[in-house]
Amino acid sequence: LKVFSLNSNPVLAKEIADNIGTELGQCTVSRFSDGEIQINIEESIRGCDVYVVQSTCAPVNQHIMELLIMIDALKRASARTINIVMPYYGYARQDRKARAREPITAKLLANLLQTAGASRVLMLDLHAPQIQGFFDIPIDHLVGVPLLSDYFEEKQFEDVVIVSPDHGGVTRARKMADRLKAPIAIIDKRRPRPNVAEVMNIVGNIEGKTAILIDDIIDTAGTITLAANALVENGAKEVYACCTHPVLSGPAIDRIDNSKIKELVVTNTIPLSEDKKSGKITELSVAPLISEAI
Amino acid sequence: LKVFSLNSNPVLAKEIADNIGTELGQCTVSRFSDGEIQINIEESIRGCDVYVVQSTCAPVNQHIMELLIMIDALKRASARTINIVMPYYGYARQDRKARAREPITAKLLANLLQTAGASRVLMLDLHAPQIQGFFDIPIDHLVGVPLLSDYFEEKQFEDVVIVSPDHGGVTRARKMADRLKAPIAIIDKRRPRPNVAEVMNIVGNIEGKTAILIDDIIDTAGTITLAANALVENGAKEVYACCTHPVLSGPAIDRIDNSKIKELVVTNTIPLSEDKKSGKITELSVAPLISEAI
Ligand SMILES: Nc1ncnc2c1ncn2[C@@H]1O[C@H](COP(=O)(O)O)[C@@H](O)[C@H]1O
Ligand SMILES: Nc1ncnc2c1ncn2[C@@H]1O[C@H](COP(=O)(O)O)[C@@H](O)[C@H]1O
Repeated sequence: LKVFSLNSNPVLAKEIADNIGTELGQCTVSRFSDGEIQINIEESIRGCDVYVVQSTCAPVNQHIMELLIMIDALKRASARTINIVMPYYGYARQDRKARAREPITAKLLANLLQTAGASRVLMLDLHAPQIQGFFDIPIDHLVGVPLLSDYFEEKQFEDVVIVSPDHGGVTRARKMADRLKAPIAIIDKRRPRPNVAEVMNIVGNIEGKTAILIDDIIDTAGTITLAANALVENGAKEVYACCTHPVLSGPAIDRIDNSKIKELVVTNTIPLSEDKKSGKITELSVAPLISEAI
Repeated sequence: LKVFSLNSNPVLAKEIADNIGTELGQCTVSRFSDGEIQINIEESIRGCDVYVVQSTCAPVNQHIMELLIMIDALKRASARTINIVMPYYGYARQDRKARAREPITAKLLANLLQTAGASRVLMLDLHAPQIQGFFDIPIDHLVGVPLLSDYFEEKQFEDVVIVSPDHGGVTRARKMADRLKAPIAIIDKRRPRPNVAEVMNIVGNIEGKTAILIDDIIDTAGTITLAANALVENGAKEVYACCTHPVLSGPAIDRIDNSKIKELVVTNTIPLSEDKKSGKITELSVAPLISEAI
């Protein structure tokens, strides 16, 4: 068994290797002068079960190509199995044709991984669990809810409500509520007529409670910060937020810093780069979860 | 028949469309906030023979993913055939395992294009013609030598010799020499012993002649500028150089500007971006060649 890290999550990969009591495999991932990726695997992996840790977070296209080229190199070096540990699956939101003539890039990525030679893929909180069906190889789908729930459990809040920021996330909120023995609420956004501002209606009782918003991905943080502010305006005592995948692009950090969110709890499926730091963010590690699944 | 351009060669694509008397297809290729590629094809292409113009030049991974996602979208929109016009094939130099545990990225790219749904690929001066065999779909392989030769023919030099900058390029030099009815010479680089500087030996007579160096790719321009200077030192009257694919990365432009090369003739398979301009470079268009092959 060998664990290799590419360029997306070196810290997490090291932690996983430590947890399962091995060293990270020796390999260099660099670039030629013209920007093409050069990969050198520096130890024999013939007959080994190889694990490659790589999230396809930004720069997403770079990280995808690194992963595909690494799989190609491992295959040609006679690895026994090539197991991809992909804490964050990029392009997961392009998982259906919402309009005519759109690509389904999440499916394309599944095909590319299989073509390159992946034997198995390990993923965490897919944006849509249906993406598992895009693959014809074994998939392990881990969930981050227990990790996030345990963190909040320790805070021993008195009167908690778990809030889904949209209709799509109710199942996830329900799971967390079960673990924390709390009720749920839903932000029910509606646009009464075209060109009229959205109404943030809250379904469920939040008055005087500590609200915990949960989502899978926080990208530009528009949804979650509007939801947090609506909760406070409608009488919530305080608002926490959490998600598995902190994409945090564009205005996200500014919005979070300026919102009513007291603390945002995320995992390290996507590392928080220097420009994505905020005093409000707490990062939990998925390394124990992944190490156990390996 | 519809021609679409992605982001690598918009000018060339327009020229090709003009040549075959059609408009470029309507499509937008942009990015989401997190850097993921978003493609919208804005007209019906059901049942059409679609041509997509894209070189996989720098930023290479970005351009590859754009192309794969576009192919996916076209396939799902029921294009009849999806024909890829790839004037420059990136990763072509990673076409074999030169060392243990290397990837063969040129083959991986062929597999990815087929998996995405390409029906046919049109390419120009592949680094190794064997790359054609990496595909199981029809390939058209065009050559740039006639275009480059015709340009030099018009100069009506008196006493010309065509020079290959290394052993690998002799066949290409021979082809050009045939068209220009000129003799050939070869730069025969040798390292007498390890850690001793290379000797630039010249095989063939270049004394007092106008030398034309020809290569397929000029990347950092180390080989070609050393060759040019060796030719002048050994008595060539003047030195021109030409290539099909002006990668021109890193120190290339500085090296060319400071070399004995009088003029460098290239084609537009890779566009000359702002930072790759030099008074010494002449650009020829491959649009007529490609339009004819379509
Ligand atoms: N990287 C991305 N950033 C923002 N929106 C996206 C991205 N990828 C896909 N989408 C859009 O997000 C929508 C799907 O999100 P959802 O409804 O949450 O599943 C679709 O309309 C997609 O076009
Ligand atoms: N993008 C690149 N830039 C520079 N060298 C490369 C690149 N891709 C592959 N190579 C190397 O170039 C050599 C092959 O070039 P050639 O001998 O001209 O076919 C191999 O040793 C490759 O490792």
